Amino acid sequence: MYTRPLANLIEQFQRLPGIGAKTAQRLALHILKRPEAEVEALATALTAAKQKVGMCQVCGHLSAEPVCEICSDDRRDDTTICVIADSRDLIALEKTREYKGKYHVLGGLISPMDGIGPDQLNIQSLLRRASSGKIDEVIMAISPSVEGETTTLYVGGLLKNFTRVTRIAFGIPMGGDLEYADEITLAKAIEGRRELES
Amino acid sequence: MYTRPLANLIEQFQRLPGIGAKTAQRLALHILKRPEAEVEALATALTAAKQKVGMCQVCGHLSAEPVCEICSDDRRDDTTICVIADSRDLIALEKTREYKGKYHVLGGLISPMDGIGPDQLNIQSLLRRASSGKIDEVIMAISPSVEGETTTLYVGGLLKNFTRVTRIAFGIPMGGDLEYADEITLAKAIEGRRELES
Repeated sequence: MYTRPLANLIEQFQRLPGIGAKTAQRLALHILKRPEAEVEALATALTAAKQKVGMCQVCGHLSAEPVCEICSDDRRDDTTICVIADSRDLIALEKTREYKGKYHVLGGLISPMDGIGPDQLNIQSLLRRASSGKIDEVIMAISPSVEGETTTLYVGGLLKNFTRVTRIAFGIPMGGDLEYADEITLAKAIEGRRELES
Repeated sequence: MYTRPLANLIEQFQRLPGIGAKTAQRLALHILKRPEAEVEALATALTAAKQKVGMCQVCGHLSAEPVCEICSDDRRDDTTICVIADSRDLIALEKTREYKGKYHVLGGLISPMDGIGPDQLNIQSLLRRASSGKIDEVIMAISPSVEGETTTLYVGGLLKNFTRVTRIAFGIPMGGDLEYADEITLAKAIEGRRELES
């Protein structure tokens, strides 16, 4: 019922994840009200991101350069690799400012149901890095879902041939209430207990 | 922390209404995974909508042509004009398939608080249409907010000099429960009562 170019824009917005008919309409009408330069900036950003951003040759993180900023940063500890499922997890870890090593992005999790096996993931290059003799520790930082556990155990098993392999701790989240924690989390928290620091 | 072109796309998405940091990130990462042609289609749709869509010269509805499809549709009754605040209301009314007349889009509501007076709205052209002698009825279909009431009374008052002016009914929505209706709606529903059709 909208004029063709507007209906088309609404359709295009609706193809984005989590954007329904109403939101798409609201976004499209918003676009019509903005100055042309602003709309042009969004259109250009879309094309530029798609054309310029690829995978870092070393770690698989999203990068506009062949090697990403983290991999080419000499100030970071390159004897430790943190293995994560995707680039979003890298950003989440970077925000903590706790970790100063390098990363390796698998690009997904092993999920036979979705037809994703080890060959579809960025595992070979991880094994090459781990077997270089320069790596002291690989930290598996993968969410503890069914696919996550499978991936951690499979990839961790391969890595153990070359280096020390650890995994991040699972337990009660900070500020979380014991009473409301699920049983599996609680069991993991007990299993992962450590000496009280005096 | 993301590479420049990706960070830029996330920023651009965040400028859209209702899109926060997390959603912008999700949308941008989604874009990187889509085929180039699909991203290009969205970018082109943005530019095309902005460049081609303007206001219908007659009614103010969004249109890629100088006169919109509804205004140029001979099958529609051109003795009746329905006055609405914006194009979204037009689409909502069209979906009912009840109304066969023409429309007039004001482009907003009178709101002195936001510096919007009658001069900022599409009122002069409505008066020209209403005073042509060809209009039998103007239906005011504006939401009953403070600004909506002000607009209905002001515009309706001017229109009465030229033609019959009506307004849409306010009352209990279909499927609505009397018990949960607010007092003003209930009062409007009683005030607007009509004879029971036998």
